[in-house]
Amino acid sequence: MKLKYLDKIKNPEYIRNLNENELLELCDELREYTIETITEIGGHLAPTLGVVEITVALHYVFNTPKDKLVWDVGHQGYAHKLLTGRFDQFPTIRQYEGLSGFLKRSESEYDVIGAGHASTSISAALGLAEARKQKNEDFRVGAIIGDGSMTGGLAYEAINNAGHLGKQLLVVLNDNEMSISPNVGAVSRYFTRLISNPIYNRVRNEFWDLTGKLPVASEKTRSLVKKIEESLKSLLVPGILFDELGFRYFGPIDGHDLKEVIKTLENIKDIQNPVLLHVITKKGKGMVSMNVDNQDYHNDAVKFHAVKPNGKIKPKDKLVSETKENAIPSFQDVFGKLVCEVGRNRKDTVCITAAMREGTGLVPYSKEFPDRYYDVGIAEGHGVTFASGLAAEGIRPIAAIYSTFLQRAYDHIVHDCAIQHLPVIFCMDRAGIAGEDGPTHHGALDIAYLRCIQDLIVTAPKNGNEFRSLLYTALNITDKPFTIRYPKTSSVEFNEQGQSELLPVGSWETCQKGTDVVILAVGPMVYTSMEASNRLKQKNISCEIINCRFIKPMDLSILESVKNRFNKIITIEEGVINGGFGDGVASWLLDKGFNGTLKRLGLPDQFVEHGPRDKILSILGLDVDGIENSIIELVTEKKDK
Amino acid sequence: MKLKYLDKIKNPEYIRNLNENELLELCDELREYTIETITEIGGHLAPTLGVVEITVALHYVFNTPKDKLVWDVGHQGYAHKLLTGRFDQFPTIRQYEGLSGFLKRSESEYDVIGAGHASTSISAALGLAEARKQKNEDFRVGAIIGDGSMTGGLAYEAINNAGHLGKQLLVVLNDNEMSISPNVGAVSRYFTRLISNPIYNRVRNEFWDLTGKLPVASEKTRSLVKKIEESLKSLLVPGILFDELGFRYFGPIDGHDLKEVIKTLENIKDIQNPVLLHVITKKGKGMVSMNVDNQDYHNDAVKFHAVKPNGKIKPKDKLVSETKENAIPSFQDVFGKLVCEVGRNRKDTVCITAAMREGTGLVPYSKEFPDRYYDVGIAEGHGVTFASGLAAEGIRPIAAIYSTFLQRAYDHIVHDCAIQHLPVIFCMDRAGIAGEDGPTHHGALDIAYLRCIQDLIVTAPKNGNEFRSLLYTALNITDKPFTIRYPKTSSVEFNEQGQSELLPVGSWETCQKGTDVVILAVGPMVYTSMEASNRLKQKNISCEIINCRFIKPMDLSILESVKNRFNKIITIEEGVINGGFGDGVASWLLDKGFNGTLKRLGLPDQFVEHGPRDKILSILGLDVDGIENSIIELVTEKKDK
Repeated sequence: MKLKYLDKIKNPEYIRNLNENELLELCDELREYTIETITEIGGHLAPTLGVVEITVALHYVFNTPKDKLVWDVGHQGYAHKLLTGRFDQFPTIRQYEGLSGFLKRSESEYDVIGAGHASTSISAALGLAEARKQKNEDFRVGAIIGDGSMTGGLAYEAINNAGHLGKQLLVVLNDNEMSISPNVGAVSRYFTRLISNPIYNRVRNEFWDLTGKLPVASEKTRSLVKKIEESLKSLLVPGILFDELGFRYFGPIDGHDLKEVIKTLENIKDIQNPVLLHVITKKGKGMVSMNVDNQDYHNDAVKFHAVKPNGKIKPKDKLVSETKENAIPSFQDVFGKLVCEVGRNRKDTVCITAAMREGTGLVPYSKEFPDRYYDVGIAEGHGVTFASGLAAEGIRPIAAIYSTFLQRAYDHIVHDCAIQHLPVIFCMDRAGIAGEDGPTHHGALDIAYLRCIQDLIVTAPKNGNEFRSLLYTALNITDKPFTIRYPKTSSVEFNEQGQSELLPVGSWETCQKGTDVVILAVGPMVYTSMEASNRLKQKNISCEIINCRFIKPMDLSILESVKNRFNKIITIEEGVINGGFGDGVASWLLDKGFNGTLKRLGLPDQFVEHGPRDKILSILGLDVDGIENSIIELVTEKKDK
Repeated sequence: MKLKYLDKIKNPEYIRNLNENELLELCDELREYTIETITEIGGHLAPTLGVVEITVALHYVFNTPKDKLVWDVGHQGYAHKLLTGRFDQFPTIRQYEGLSGFLKRSESEYDVIGAGHASTSISAALGLAEARKQKNEDFRVGAIIGDGSMTGGLAYEAINNAGHLGKQLLVVLNDNEMSISPNVGAVSRYFTRLISNPIYNRVRNEFWDLTGKLPVASEKTRSLVKKIEESLKSLLVPGILFDELGFRYFGPIDGHDLKEVIKTLENIKDIQNPVLLHVITKKGKGMVSMNVDNQDYHNDAVKFHAVKPNGKIKPKDKLVSETKENAIPSFQDVFGKLVCEVGRNRKDTVCITAAMREGTGLVPYSKEFPDRYYDVGIAEGHGVTFASGLAAEGIRPIAAIYSTFLQRAYDHIVHDCAIQHLPVIFCMDRAGIAGEDGPTHHGALDIAYLRCIQDLIVTAPKNGNEFRSLLYTALNITDKPFTIRYPKTSSVEFNEQGQSELLPVGSWETCQKGTDVVILAVGPMVYTSMEASNRLKQKNISCEIINCRFIKPMDLSILESVKNRFNKIITIEEGVINGGFGDGVASWLLDKGFNGTLKRLGLPDQFVEHGPRDKILSILGLDVDGIENSIIELVTEKKDK
């Protein structure tokens, strides 16, 4: 498209010299260009379209980068990227070595804090505000947070603390009445009530009803009545909840009315007290159905939350939710099918998600079992402790939470499930490389952070069928938490009519016998190993392949046998090597006097950048080529000795 | 003391047959007996004294155990223990093999959920309430939560979710205006305002002022005015915040007025909607100064939060805060002194605590640097993300959080500090065996859960002087988080006028040369190892001792040398073995072809019960005897080969 502004913007200073009409044109151009580019290359779309005017207004009114803006979840920051000198690189967004799909400190001085997880912005912004005080400097701090992120306890903790500290701090509440999934919770309903403002309206109506019935009054009386009304208004306008928490509340205003947003920001930008500006926006504005009351809007906004590249998808990159007839479903879809199956067979089961119904594959379950489906909002900690309460009464909760998001609930797993010996089942999606979402979403740590927890089971299925067996096995355990991890990829094999098999806890499976080297593989790495092994056969290298479906406890009899029969062992896992599965194997082997060679493949001790899953795995040596090479190295080394 | 009731109570059914006067007598007896017993044997005292009447009333009105009570932080549950069949064991509380100081599922069917960390009760209770629905059963659920715990985001997440689900669920807000430290935050101020109820009072006053000025009115007018007032009252009574969140608010009532509490509970026990009952109590009632406005009250309540056994302290068991002249200060006191020293030298530093000013040793700092001291409330997650914001602006935050409480902030360490490359410093108290507080407080996991995080430094000082050096070394690192762990014990050596030494990152220290076996010791285990080594000298076993002050990264040159010179290596750490320091050493050694024996000492893969720190360490083989025996075993094994 032909551009009038975007290609000229080196930094936000530029837009501060535009007049009102030009700013309006800029907003249109931002929206149009973003839609055109992102539908072409793929990426998060709806979140940023909702905040185009807010972004322009904030950079116009705030003196960035001296003033600091903190975006809650950086995927709403595409327009921010375009206004802060990243126009040229914009078409590389979410691509390997391209711009991050979130904000990133190393990418720009305008990215004060990065975030891929929700609800962090107010805490971080409060930190900036206090740093200002400590350094005796003078700048403004603003945080932009969605109503979905406001369901997270972290946002509340920050508001509570900010209200106590009381300094300039602007929180823009971007209220589009939905996060990724439609919002839940009392706070969300509260926001809706704020918009329709029933308390004030109700009191005012009752008041006028009554005063209308008073004896016809003098001028003085009328002015008194007016004074009463004012007094009521100051007490009863929306936002009393935030007022109670020490914030000054402004709004709600239309977040797509640029003039109104700028005018309001100008008025409140220097208030020396925490301020909440409630802005109503439409997620995906420009792309979605125009009727917000319509189910179409919600469907569209979910649909356009993130879009796929336009017709340029290679079969490998196929997105998770896209299953064709006869195609092998992803682990996500398998999970969705399995919980429905389990739901029919076991009336004592329920499913819990933290605002990730779509991503985790729970849509079919939520429709078939609405009464046994719990979306707790962006509140992983609560979701897990809530599950412990259910489990304490004999209900069997299955908590579907991404590997990295579960980090939010770490203490809740330890303190509320494991120490209590409660059998909560965790299904951890996005375990391993998440792809374009990058380091905040790569599930690198779960094996390590779970393996250390006392008396807890950690597993990974090699395929969809084994996922079923692990899930039924988990339901058979009644005195401890059981975790199942799987990456964002194909489930390799899944028979929808298949039968589950109860797997002995701690049992591995020998997939292939061999003589030169043994591969201890976790999850679908079993299949990558198979492929590598097939190639190695041609080179006269014979691999034994073990499916280490129980990461903890391990299968000590197979380990014993492996130790006795091989002096070359390789472990493969999609997780950090430090503290991971391979570490456990190494310790056991050393304890048993193994004096051969163990090679541990996995993720490195540094954050892995974003990019296509396959490419990243290849760079990390975790694809067929990489495994083949590692094994050749290992075997050659042997021959050297 | 002579008892009339307590020794007869086998279960709460007993008290349901008492009359009002008897119940009042029972309350007095409970309070008196608890004070007498706990001042004798030591334990948490003030929390439970504040809830004596609430406990009696709840068990009187609720049909426990069919009805379920969930106590937020079990240390308020001593009276609950006495009413639920544990009178005989009561004097064993917090002692080895005695009753837990918190609630414990395995201890009693009345302990529905255990909790040593705050803010979990509403989530767990909501889980119970939903289990009731799923099972189509009929029982009541009540949670008892302190105002301090209400600063935790988990409580908010649960309230938000409960308000949305809408079922019978009683939350008793036990408001004593302080947790362990005096409370902070807007919510705490909000509670105070609820008690004095200014909004309603203000509106009512203004309203009557005005109506007083209206023309003298007819009977009809006066009734209209009354109607207005009623309408205002329904809108403006306290609790609007909870009303907004979907709860029905009742209170505030006097939590020490047993009749009032019982009457209110009877009235609200069957409301089929979440209900918040706001109860005002006095923490430590019966022990503390009577004047709540007085600083003495706060001091007393802090002082009596937990008490030490009466005059029965052996030198070893000396409590942390008790330092005599010339006595070696605990790590907690050393931390307190060090941050004051750092505060004077480095104006860019601040300290953060999550409601643990006393426990972490921050009292002197908070007094000397009130403007650079942040108590964020019981909100570890926010505390850490807040720290990341401070660090992003060049301020150097030192976050003092117990090892197990930091589990609450796991994602915040990963996502908001490590991925952002922000140099937040974590000082983790209670790393290792915490003693009488038991499994919820033993810092067993931090080495494992931190060691896996990419690009993060994990350290443990052997003594107070090295703590100083590690802290200054941490301040020298500007691009990643730095963690320092230390147990609840003596700092062994600390020179208040000492100088810091900048330690090369990843450097270990050879404390003693030896020939037969090398001990890789973490933290003050260096000294336990020294003692063991001294004994072993008599037995002609020569130990080399390495102080592994950097758990991550490790000192590879010392490791290399150790590997080449020894074939007997032992690692000693106060943390779980799975995924711990020893695992890292094992993996490295195996990688390097070590074929001697490595023995890893540490905490087992099961939760460790409560008891005196020394006793527990001894049971786990982590005292001088245990280490001596392990080394003898290791060396003997060698001779066998």
